[in-house]
Amino acid sequence: MNTIPDRSEEFRALQDTLYFIGGKWRLPIISSLCNGNKRFKDIQRSIPGITTRMLSKELKDMELNKLIKRTVNDDSPILITYEPTSYSRTFGKIIQAMIDWGREHREVITEREIAKKV
Amino acid sequence: MNTIPDRSEEFRALQDTLYFIGGKWRLPIISSLCNGNKRFKDIQRSIPGITTRMLSKELKDMELNKLIKRTVNDDSPILITYEPTSYSRTFGKIIQAMIDWGREHREVITEREIAKKV
Repeated sequence: MNTIPDRSEEFRALQDTLYFIGGKWRLPIISSLCNGNKRFKDIQRSIPGITTRMLSKELKDMELNKLIKRTVNDDSPILITYEPTSYSRTFGKIIQAMIDWGREHREVITEREIAKKV
Repeated sequence: MNTIPDRSEEFRALQDTLYFIGGKWRLPIISSLCNGNKRFKDIQRSIPGITTRMLSKELKDMELNKLIKRTVNDDSPILITYEPTSYSRTFGKIIQAMIDWGREHREVITEREIAKKV
């Protein structure tokens, strides 16, 4: 590439992504769905700390944003399942980079958290 | 690698990273410092939407977390500069993945934002 890097354009792209990820639940939910969890209770169980209320709100927002597909099977009992769309799979690289970072810096973070509490 | 993936460990790593990034300003600030901005006013100018109060708070937290180095030059006028540490540069891959994502999905996001406002 021969283009001169446009920093303000880079910043906009970075901020757009952060805005879209918005908060700490969206990526873990995508990750959970990509790992094969389909039902509300299974998704909730896989994400430490998420409340029913938060998961319910996020799933609704994510359906509106076409990140997930919600399917209602009209059998008895009614079964509701969630699936990741191909759009949500585009977060794969970001999620993997975050998992790698978290692994590499586990000790440093743990030290910081202890230091904060002391 | 022959190991069976441990999903709960992956989740912890992902959540640790999200927790540490915490909010929408830390990565843009690191990115700004890595682009060569050193002074408060320059950093602020480079990040659309950040207030003086937020930047001031973040810089303090980031100094405590060893993400940045703050230097006070005792000349007159006093000059305070900020530099990224090697630790903050470990976010490079995550930042780049987010810039790439933001670029690729600009149109989709813009459509969503318009849809929300209608």
